[in-house]
Amino acid sequence: MSDTMIQAFGEFFGTCILVLLGDGIVAGVSLNKTKSNGAGWVAITFAWGFAVTIAVFLSGFMTPGAHLNPAVTIGVAMAGNFEWSMVVPFIIAQMLGGILGAVLVWLHYYPHWEATKDPATILGVFSTAPAIRHTWSNLLGEIIGTFVLVYGILAFGYNTFADGLNPIVVGILIIVIGLSLGGTTGYAINPARDLGPRIAHFILPIANKGDSDWGYSWIPVVGPIIGGIIAALIYGMFPVL
Amino acid sequence: MSDTMIQAFGEFFGTCILVLLGDGIVAGVSLNKTKSNGAGWVAITFAWGFAVTIAVFLSGFMTPGAHLNPAVTIGVAMAGNFEWSMVVPFIIAQMLGGILGAVLVWLHYYPHWEATKDPATILGVFSTAPAIRHTWSNLLGEIIGTFVLVYGILAFGYNTFADGLNPIVVGILIIVIGLSLGGTTGYAINPARDLGPRIAHFILPIANKGDSDWGYSWIPVVGPIIGGIIAALIYGMFPVL
Amino acid sequence: MSDTMIQAFGEFFGTCILVLLGDGIVAGVSLNKTKSNGAGWVAITFAWGFAVTIAVFLSGFMTPGAHLNPAVTIGVAMAGNFEWSMVVPFIIAQMLGGILGAVLVWLHYYPHWEATKDPATILGVFSTAPAIRHTWSNLLGEIIGTFVLVYGILAFGYNTFADGLNPIVVGILIIVIGLSLGGTTGYAINPARDLGPRIAHFILPIANKGDSDWGYSWIPVVGPIIGGIIAALIYGMFPVL
Amino acid sequence: MSDTMIQAFGEFFGTCILVLLGDGIVAGVSLNKTKSNGAGWVAITFAWGFAVTIAVFLSGFMTPGAHLNPAVTIGVAMAGNFEWSMVVPFIIAQMLGGILGAVLVWLHYYPHWEATKDPATILGVFSTAPAIRHTWSNLLGEIIGTFVLVYGILAFGYNTFADGLNPIVVGILIIVIGLSLGGTTGYAINPARDLGPRIAHFILPIANKGDSDWGYSWIPVVGPIIGGIIAALIYGMFPVL
Repeated sequence: MSDTMIQAFGEFFGTCILVLLGDGIVAGVSLNKTKSNGAGWVAITFAWGFAVTIAVFLSGFMTPGAHLNPAVTIGVAMAGNFEWSMVVPFIIAQMLGGILGAVLVWLHYYPHWEATKDPATILGVFSTAPAIRHTWSNLLGEIIGTFVLVYGILAFGYNTFADGLNPIVVGILIIVIGLSLGGTTGYAINPARDLGPRIAHFILPIANKGDSDWGYSWIPVVGPIIGGIIAALIYGMFPVL
Repeated sequence: MSDTMIQAFGEFFGTCILVLLGDGIVAGVSLNKTKSNGAGWVAITFAWGFAVTIAVFLSGFMTPGAHLNPAVTIGVAMAGNFEWSMVVPFIIAQMLGGILGAVLVWLHYYPHWEATKDPATILGVFSTAPAIRHTWSNLLGEIIGTFVLVYGILAFGYNTFADGLNPIVVGILIIVIGLSLGGTTGYAINPARDLGPRIAHFILPIANKGDSDWGYSWIPVVGPIIGGIIAALIYGMFPVL
Repeated sequence: MSDTMIQAFGEFFGTCILVLLGDGIVAGVSLNKTKSNGAGWVAITFAWGFAVTIAVFLSGFMTPGAHLNPAVTIGVAMAGNFEWSMVVPFIIAQMLGGILGAVLVWLHYYPHWEATKDPATILGVFSTAPAIRHTWSNLLGEIIGTFVLVYGILAFGYNTFADGLNPIVVGILIIVIGLSLGGTTGYAINPARDLGPRIAHFILPIANKGDSDWGYSWIPVVGPIIGGIIAALIYGMFPVL
Repeated sequence: MSDTMIQAFGEFFGTCILVLLGDGIVAGVSLNKTKSNGAGWVAITFAWGFAVTIAVFLSGFMTPGAHLNPAVTIGVAMAGNFEWSMVVPFIIAQMLGGILGAVLVWLHYYPHWEATKDPATILGVFSTAPAIRHTWSNLLGEIIGTFVLVYGILAFGYNTFADGLNPIVVGILIIVIGLSLGGTTGYAINPARDLGPRIAHFILPIANKGDSDWGYSWIPVVGPIIGGIIAALIYGMFPVL
C-alpha cells in the first residue's frame, strides 16, 4: 500500500469517526426518547470539539496532521504546507468518510428516527441549517468560522506543544468556534462534515425523513473553502517576531 | 505478594473507584433530594470520563495501563498486547471491584434511596437500561461504543504523551463516547461496570428497589466484548504510515 | 522571614484565594439577581475544581505542594510525607485564609445579600449543609469524599506529570468528587473551607443572615479529618508493582 | 517592520480574535433565534476562557506573552516585567482590536439584531452592565476580578509549564474568574474588551440598539486598571520560598 493510499485511508477513517461522534451528539440531543435529549449547546459544542481531538488521535498514525476537512486541506496547500497533488485524493477520502460516519449514526440511533416526527430535526442530525435564512450572512458566518479554524491550525505551527497536547488544543479551538460563532449557521466549517452526511440523508431509508435541503447545501461547502483560503492568505502576509 | 496478585488487586481497587465515582454521578443526578438532582447529561458524561481518568491515576502504580474493564482486557489480549493467562484473574478482580464500588454508592447516598420511589430510577443508578428496548439496535449500540473505546486505547499506543496526559485523553474519549453515543443504551461499554453493580443491586437491601432486569443484562456484557474484539481485529488490519 | 513562616503565609494566601473563588461560585449561583443565578451543579463543581487548580498555582511558590486543607495536611503527615511540627501552623494559616476569603466574597457580592431573603441560601454560600440531615450518613459521606481526595493526592506521588499538569489533575479530582459524591452533603472535604467561612458568617453583619448552624458544623470538620487519616493508612498498606 | 510594530500588531490582532470569540458567545446566548440561545452561564464562561487561550496561541508569534488587555500591560509594567515605553502603543492596539472584533460580531450575527427587540440585550453583547447598579461595589468587583487575573499571570511566572500548557492554564483562570466572580458586573476585567466594543456599539448602525450606557463605562476601565496595579504591588511584596 503506497504512502498516499495509507494517508487517504487515514483521512477516510478519521473523518468517519469525526462524523460518527459529531453527528452522534446532535442525534443524542435532538432525537426523541434518547437519554441525552435536550442536553443543550454545551453538550453539542464540547462533543464536536472532543470528536475532533479523538479523531485526530485515532487516525494520525495513518495521516500525520490529520486534516479530516477539505477546507483545512485546501488551506494548508494554499499556505504551502501540503502538496497540491494530494488535495483531490484527500477530499474524496474525507467525503466518503463523512458518508460512512453518517450511516453509522443512522444505525446507532435506529429506533429513535421512528420516534421523531419532525423532518427538520432529522435532517439537522446529518447536516447544518441556518437559524435565520439570510444568504450573504450565512455565507459570511461560515467564512468567519472557518477562517478562525484554518488560521488557528496554521498559527499552531508557530507554537510548540508537549507530546499529545496539540489535538487537545485543536479540540478547544473547535469548542470555542462552536460556542461563539456556531449559533447562526450551526458551524459546518467543514464541507465533508456537511455534504457527506447530506448525501447519506438523501440515500438512506430513514424513518420520517423529509427533503435534504439542497438549496442551502452549497453554503457549508463554499463558505468553508473561502474561509480556508482567506486564512492561508492572511497567514502568509502576517509578520513573525 | 506476586506481581500478578498486585496487578489484579490494582484492577479490583481501580474498578471500585471507577464505579464509586461513575455510579455516584448517576445517583447524584437521579435520586430525589440530592443537591445535584437534575444536573443533566453533561454532568453525567464528564463525571464518568473524569472517573476513568482518576481511577487510572489511583490504581496505575499497581496495574500499569489500568484496564478496569473486561472488554479492554480481552481487546488488548486479542491485539497481542497482553498475556492471555492474566485475562481471567483481571476480569474476576474487575467484577469484584464493580460490586464493591456499587456497595459504597449505596452507603454514600443512604437516605436518598428512601426518598426515591421509582424502582427504575434506583436500578438506573447501578446498571444501564436502554432508552428504547430494541434488541439488535441496543446490542449494536454497545458494540459501536466499545469499538470506539478499545480501538481508541489501542491507537493511543501509536501516539506519545507528555507525562500524565494519557489518562486525561482516555477521559476525553469516555466523555465523547458518552455524549455522542450514550443516549441510546446509557453506554455501559464495560461489563464490570454494568454486571458488577447489577449483582450488588440484586443482593443489597436497597429501599424501594424493584427487580434487577436480568433479561437485559446480557447486552451490556456481550456487546462490549464483541466491540472490543472487533476493535482488536480492525486495529491489527490497519496500515501504519 | 523564616521558611516556615513563608510556607504558612502561602497556606493562608492560597486558602483565601480558594475560598474566594469557591464560595464565590456558590454566591453567584444561589444569590438573587446575579447574572449567574441558577447556573447549576456543573458550574459549581467545575468552579470549585478550577479554584483549587488556580489557588495551587498562585501560592505554590510560597508553599510547594500547597495543601490548603487541614485534612490534606494531617493525611500527608500521617503518611510520613510532611513534618508533624508544621501541622498546627499550617492549619491555623488555612483557617485564617478561609475566614478572609469568605469576607472577600461578602464584599464582592455586597448588594446581593440584601436582595436574597432566605437565610439558608445565605449560609449555604459560606458553609455546607446536608441535603438530608442524617448524622452517620452525612459523616460517612464526608469521610468517603475526603478519602478519595487525600488518597488521590498521595497516589499522584507515584505518577510523574509534565510541568504544570499536576494542579490541573488535582482540579479534575475535585470536580469529579463534587459531581459524583457532592450531592449529599455539599462536599466540604476541607475543614478550613467549611469552618473558616462559618466563623465569617457568624461574625459579619450580612443582610438577611440567620443562624450559623453550629449543630452541624462538626461533621465537615471531623469527617474530612477521619477520611484523610483512613486514606493515609490504606495508602501505606497498598503494594506497589 | 520594527519589532515594536510587530508586537503592537499582534496585540491588535489577538484582541480582535478575543473579542470576536468573547462577545460572540454573549451574542449567541442572548440574541433571539440563535441556535445557542439560552445556553447559559457555563457556555459563556468557558467560551471566554477558551477565547483567551486561542487568542494567545493565534497572536503569540507576533507578541510573545500576549497581554490583549491594558490592565495586564499596566500590571506587568508595574511589576517590572515590561517596558513602560511600550505601554501606550499596546493599549492603543488593544483598543483598536476590541473595536474591530466587535464589528465582526455585528456582521457575523447580522440578521439576529433585527430579531432582538431589547436594547439592553444588544448592548450586553458588546459591553458589560452590572446585575445591580451599586457604584462602589461594582468598582470593587472589577478590582477583585482583575486582581486575581493579573496576580495570577504574574504568579504563573514562578511556575514552569510543559510546551503549550500555559495558555490553557490562563484560560482556566479566566473561566473560574467568570464562574466565581462574574455574576455581579459581568467581569469586564479588561478595558479593551469593554470600552472597545462600547465604541463600536456607539458608532455602528445596529438594528434595535439603544444608548451605550456611558455613565457606567468608566467602571470597567478604572476598576481593572486599579486591580492590575494592586496585583503588581502585592506580587512585589510577597516572599518566595
